[in-house]
Amino acid sequence: MIVEPKSARLYDAAHPLHTVSGGTLSEVDVAYETYGTLNADRSNAVYICHALTGDAHAAGEHADGKPGWWANMIGPGKPIDTDRWFVVASNLLGGCAGTTGPSSIDPATGETYGLDFPLLLVSDFVTVHRRLGEHLGITRWAACVGGSLGGMQVLDWALHHPEDMDNAIIVAASSRLTAQNIAFSAVARHAIMRDSEFHGGRFHERGTAPDRGLSVARMMAHITYLSDEAFGEKFGRQAQRGELSRNFGVDFAVESYLEHQGQKFLSRFDALSYLYLSRAMDYFDCLSNDDACALLGRSPVRFLVMSFDSDWRYSTKDSRRIVRHLERARQPVSFREIASPWGHDSFLLEIPDYHDTVRAFLDRAWEAL
Amino acid sequence: MIVEPKSARLYDAAHPLHTVSGGTLSEVDVAYETYGTLNADRSNAVYICHALTGDAHAAGEHADGKPGWWANMIGPGKPIDTDRWFVVASNLLGGCAGTTGPSSIDPATGETYGLDFPLLLVSDFVTVHRRLGEHLGITRWAACVGGSLGGMQVLDWALHHPEDMDNAIIVAASSRLTAQNIAFSAVARHAIMRDSEFHGGRFHERGTAPDRGLSVARMMAHITYLSDEAFGEKFGRQAQRGELSRNFGVDFAVESYLEHQGQKFLSRFDALSYLYLSRAMDYFDCLSNDDACALLGRSPVRFLVMSFDSDWRYSTKDSRRIVRHLERARQPVSFREIASPWGHDSFLLEIPDYHDTVRAFLDRAWEAL
Repeated sequence: MIVEPKSARLYDAAHPLHTVSGGTLSEVDVAYETYGTLNADRSNAVYICHALTGDAHAAGEHADGKPGWWANMIGPGKPIDTDRWFVVASNLLGGCAGTTGPSSIDPATGETYGLDFPLLLVSDFVTVHRRLGEHLGITRWAACVGGSLGGMQVLDWALHHPEDMDNAIIVAASSRLTAQNIAFSAVARHAIMRDSEFHGGRFHERGTAPDRGLSVARMMAHITYLSDEAFGEKFGRQAQRGELSRNFGVDFAVESYLEHQGQKFLSRFDALSYLYLSRAMDYFDCLSNDDACALLGRSPVRFLVMSFDSDWRYSTKDSRRIVRHLERARQPVSFREIASPWGHDSFLLEIPDYHDTVRAFLDRAWEAL
Repeated sequence: MIVEPKSARLYDAAHPLHTVSGGTLSEVDVAYETYGTLNADRSNAVYICHALTGDAHAAGEHADGKPGWWANMIGPGKPIDTDRWFVVASNLLGGCAGTTGPSSIDPATGETYGLDFPLLLVSDFVTVHRRLGEHLGITRWAACVGGSLGGMQVLDWALHHPEDMDNAIIVAASSRLTAQNIAFSAVARHAIMRDSEFHGGRFHERGTAPDRGLSVARMMAHITYLSDEAFGEKFGRQAQRGELSRNFGVDFAVESYLEHQGQKFLSRFDALSYLYLSRAMDYFDCLSNDDACALLGRSPVRFLVMSFDSDWRYSTKDSRRIVRHLERARQPVSFREIASPWGHDSFLLEIPDYHDTVRAFLDRAWEAL
């Protein structure tokens, strides 16, 4: 399934985007991809929201052979079956893979936005998703689906615009970050913003980048994406080469893995996007008001909420909080905790119980069409 | 209890220190402190081994009022009662609080050692502790005591020189780091060594220091010292000032805490010592051989091993591994898991169950004298 990247200018000077934080963007391009075919009554559309470092290339393959990040989940015969569903995936506002973000050129200055880009909240991502829907002629989605930050977008979207969707699938997400989550995020931002090449966010103009800080952020994040158990199973105390050679270089296999992840990330991600998207997660807290679920009363959404038992970044406790609120609001919600040793990363993996659950949930959605 | 810092030159050109890694140090000064009075038959001596960032000032107060880092544990009437015991605490080889380390001057060059300082292992710390004992005329300790890296030294010491001690107290430690532990350590080292001010370890000569990297290392470490629960209880999602102001600065209370810890650390700790001491922890793996406990058969040590139920840095599982090996070797060992929400930090806190357990164990040691 070869797919082509698409792009649309969704906001312009005549129709600017106003962010929740009070900022204005007079030009917003959004990169997106679609898989499958939209049916005549436009009732088979599914929206995919990506996580912190994802992009619009969720499924299929690009012409160069590069597979989508969720190709095991989306495609012909896959749990999100493109023989049935018309699937749309976009790159987030503030991202760095085709959608306007802080490293894009500000038309007002001819330079990158840098830290002048407005602060983003998860609701801003949803605003742009909805605008893309309008652009494609889709105002009601059969399902909105996302893991991690993607699940946070789906939850926010369902709570504020339940009339937009029939079903919502929220995987390994939370209604709010814990203090420990924010702490990891704070250290990552600190590493990036204190990097000597950050230059107050104006590093592009200087032809440099805070690579050291960004790789530290990514390495640390990877520790939280795997469980302690998974690290033990995958690497243990193994030497990278033969025996431990006792030095300050890369000696343990786990060090090599992290170094590789940190370095690889630099070629595909932007430090400013990392700041903006991770900060949106810190501020997300969509169930803090008693009436957070009020709109759902008028326009019910069928929810599937899933967690993984070894995920300590967004734990089952976090998913249960979402379920508790939805149940109190008398919403139809299925909850599944999936057994998996792979921690938060599980939401990207092909775990039979997990994929079967998504498939069964969407089967019912298909029958209800 | 006003105490005075002491120092001794324990190795010199005529009697150099040979490290396990094959290095030689022709001058080693060790900073230490003592509390209480050594009795006539020298049978009441207790050795305190400090953790990663500790120092020789474990108890009492310096003339400037600064309390020791374990003043709640050691002192008159405290669990380690200085009315009974003669307590010795030293700064580790490779440290930066009076004992020779990588930022000391290499007499051969007149410059700091930097990365030319030999790689250290936990056994090297023990070698120097034993030499300090000889210097003080103490070759048998009523007890050796330590938490975290301190506990690792006590375990290593007991396994290799059981004739040196009657009792060993090992708190919140492990016989080996997990892959996840090593991963955190690797990111910390990466942050320090890739800091633009690291200069291959020759930063002192340039009048600078890798402060950004070291503060990132410290901030990250602090996340692992507290439990998720403790972070929630202490900070939750509270704003640092009134309401959240939504920006990239220090907005959440937990961010302020980490920034403060990171900054405060810079004035009291050295980046090279951080590298050397943390690397010694990575390589520690004292129970990997089947006959690791063999020497204990000839000269039994009474062990007290303790963990804290919310400690995810060195968990109860790690302590149980130590206990299992000691029991298999038919050694007398008491094990207690202490209930505490404060994670790894618990070993420094005044937790009644914890302190009572240490007190009772040492009471029996006193009666057995």
